[in-house]
This record gives sequence, structure tokens and C-alpha cells, in this order.
Amino acid sequence: MTKTTLLENERLDDLHRCGYMIIQNTQGFCFGIDSVLLTGFAEVKKGDKLLDLCTGNGVIPILLAAKSEAAHLSGIEIQSESVDMAKRSVEYNKLSGRVNIINGDVKEIESHIKPGSFDVVSANPPYIEAGGGIIGDYSPKAIARHELYLNLDDVIKAAAYALKFRGRFYMVHRPSRLADIFCALRKYKLEPKSMRLVQPYENKAPNLLLIEATLGGGKELKVLPALVVYDKDGNYTKECRDIYYE
Amino acid sequence: MTKTTLLENERLDDLHRCGYMIIQNTQGFCFGIDSVLLTGFAEVKKGDKLLDLCTGNGVIPILLAAKSEAAHLSGIEIQSESVDMAKRSVEYNKLSGRVNIINGDVKEIESHIKPGSFDVVSANPPYIEAGGGIIGDYSPKAIARHELYLNLDDVIKAAAYALKFRGRFYMVHRPSRLADIFCALRKYKLEPKSMRLVQPYENKAPNLLLIEATLGGGKELKVLPALVVYDKDGNYTKECRDIYYE
Repeated sequence: MTKTTLLENERLDDLHRCGYMIIQNTQGFCFGIDSVLLTGFAEVKKGDKLLDLCTGNGVIPILLAAKSEAAHLSGIEIQSESVDMAKRSVEYNKLSGRVNIINGDVKEIESHIKPGSFDVVSANPPYIEAGGGIIGDYSPKAIARHELYLNLDDVIKAAAYALKFRGRFYMVHRPSRLADIFCALRKYKLEPKSMRLVQPYENKAPNLLLIEATLGGGKELKVLPALVVYDKDGNYTKECRDIYYE
Repeated sequence: MTKTTLLENERLDDLHRCGYMIIQNTQGFCFGIDSVLLTGFAEVKKGDKLLDLCTGNGVIPILLAAKSEAAHLSGIEIQSESVDMAKRSVEYNKLSGRVNIINGDVKEIESHIKPGSFDVVSANPPYIEAGGGIIGDYSPKAIARHELYLNLDDVIKAAAYALKFRGRFYMVHRPSRLADIFCALRKYKLEPKSMRLVQPYENKAPNLLLIEATLGGGKELKVLPALVVYDKDGNYTKECRDIYYE
């Protein structure tokens, strides 16, 4: 095992793909099933250039580096502590040639990224509208969960900016934001092409939403059968195991 | 059994509620499971005034007259043959005091209906965008299925016109139109409050969508677990049987 420097409260977690590991801060925001499911939903083709918005500790570009033959994967993140962890994970996994982590604000994407320069954009943005529960908490966890530094409109605007014409945008979010999501996508000419609800159990209401949209695409939304995470015994369903493990 | 005059190609079908029957033209458009599921999804309270847009042979107001304690139920339909059948079904079921069928164009709703005069509006409108397959066919079936005389925007605009502030709109449609539906609802200040996808079988992609929106409502969309129509043996699920039969 290659050596890496872990700072206080950090640990090295197994991504179960290509032997890749990821550095996480146990006191900060650790990646969840939503990011993993997004990497199972996104269609990344050989040679694609991918940009991940709000990349956090880089779990999405690192996992997609393992799962796809993308030529290049970038991630942009505003929080410098997360960027630092992400960069060290990229080095640890010997991915410096393919994965690039940018410390920047998605709202100022034009300072970092050329317009129309990516085939695919992915995002697991904060889900909760500002004002929806917390006040004055700007901890890393709060920033990752609540729309404090950027909102849904900002994320979708940035995706439309970064994508080539006919480029594909993949996002994971909450079902309760579905109307906001569709309206914002259309506003920026990102046409919803497929969506999949994620239910924790069969017969339970969905708590996550996976969505694909195409820049300048024609109208044709495909609604896929719900993805069920756990079987009745509380184990991952086969589909979920296949997304998680090699 | 009360006598009624059935015209050529007409038959009398059992609605399995309160002994109500409905006149259908076997050569025309007969109601389907979508209308029945909408009557199971719509929450109609005691004393409510309900308006059903594109009411066809009146199946939705007649079924909701059986299932609810609505004070009054109106239906509006452009095709006079359907209106004639609906009116005879209303008489047959002795519902003339509660159910009123209007022969009119939903696009000219202000000629028939006072603004803000209904607690609930329901609609099972044509699903298919004009230009999407048929040319020059203005048969009753084609009019019921394709957006020939009115489109989604017209339906939603009419619903917003007819509803009281905080009134509820219930619609059944196709999942592929979800983005169109959300954007049109928001355009007319109808905030989506709950939605339910309908799957023919478990693990099959949904082919129908039930949606509730409130005029002037706050943002809070609840996505319900999918409604499954058939079990693996091809029989109605318990939930579906309960919607169909008393």
C-alpha cells in the first residue's frame, strides 16, 4: 500500500474499484450512496471529458476514472479543505494524469473553465434550499448539504456553460425538488432525457432522484423503473451491489 | 334496472360503484384505467365543487359522485356525441341534481365557468403532442388521445382559471411529459404538491403519472411510492382492486 499523509480526523476508505482509496474527514462531510449511485447512472464514454461540479473530496471523478474510459476528469470545489483531500486522493491513486481538482466557485466557472469544453458534466449539489432549517452554520457539512454558497439554478447554469452542444448532464438530487429541477434545466436549454427515482425499499417513497439532461436536446423524457437500494432483509439489492462493487 | 336508450354501437358498462352504469360507444373512445386511477388519487372533500376538464363520456364526475361527498360535479367536453352520452349516463344514474355536463371548449372556459369558482379541478386530457404520429385524423378517439383541439398548456391554464385560491388540481398524464407538466403548472401558479408514477408491473417502467397541484401553494412536492397495477400473475394488485371495486 502506498503511503499517504493523513491529517487529524482523516481516514482512508476503500472505493472497491481498481483498488482506489479515498481520503475522508470523519468530522466533515463524507460521501454517501447518492454519489455512488450517480456514478452508476452517468453514461461516460471512451475519450469523454468530464467535469464534476461541487466535487467535494473528489469521490465522483475518482470513481468515474475507475468505472469509465473517460480521457479526462475534472472536479471543481469551493472548500479548500475538501480540495486538499481530493488532490491527495488523486495522487494516492496515481490518477494525476487523468483527474484534475480545481479550487473554485461554481458560480464563477468562467474563471476556470472554457465554455462548451466538456462532453459530460456531473453534480451532486447541496439539496436543501437556504432558509430551510439552519441559520449561521457554515460548517463543511452544512455547505455540502444546504444551498448556502450556490443554489440549484447556479449549478444548472454552470453545467450548461461547461457542456458542448448535445453534451450530457447527470445530477443526483431530492425528489421534492423535481419541479425546481425541470424548470431550471429548461431555462438553460438542458432538456431532461431520463430520470430514475431511488427508493430505499420496495413500496417506500423515493428519497433520491437521478436525472440526465442534454444541452439542446429534443423533448423525449424516459422515466425508468425505480432503483431499489435494500431488499426486505436490509441487504443491498443486486443492482446496488453491482454499482458499489467490482 | 332503469331503461335507457342506447344508440348504435353503444353499450352500458358497470362502474362497480353505487350501482352506477356508464354509456360507452364501442367505436369511440372508451374510458381506461387512467380515469379510474385519477378518481382514486383525487382528494375530494365533503361539499366540494369539482370541475372535470375534457370529461368525455363523464366517467370521472360520475365515478367521483359515487366515491365522494362532493356537493356538485361539472364536466366540460368539446365533442357533442360524448356530451350526449354523458348526459344520458347522468340521467340513468339519477345524478342530475349533482352532476352537470357542459358542451364546450376548454380553451373558451370563460364562456362557461366563473373564475375561481371550483374547489377541485380534474383532468384526463389528450396525452400526445400534435404532430406526434397522426395526420388529418379527427376521429373521436384521435381527439381524445392527441393534442388536436387543445394542448397541455390550455388544460392547465383552464384549471388555474376555474380554481379558487388554494384549490386543488388533479391530472393523469404520461411520465414522458413530466417536464412539460411541471413547467406549465408553475407558469399558471399551480404548485406541484404530490405525484405518483403508475407502473404496470413491479420493476417495469411507469406508463402513467398522477399529479396534484395547488393554486398559489407553497413549494413542497411529495413523491409517493409507485402504484403497481398488476401482480406477477397478471391480476390487479390489492390497491388497484380497491380503486376499481367497492
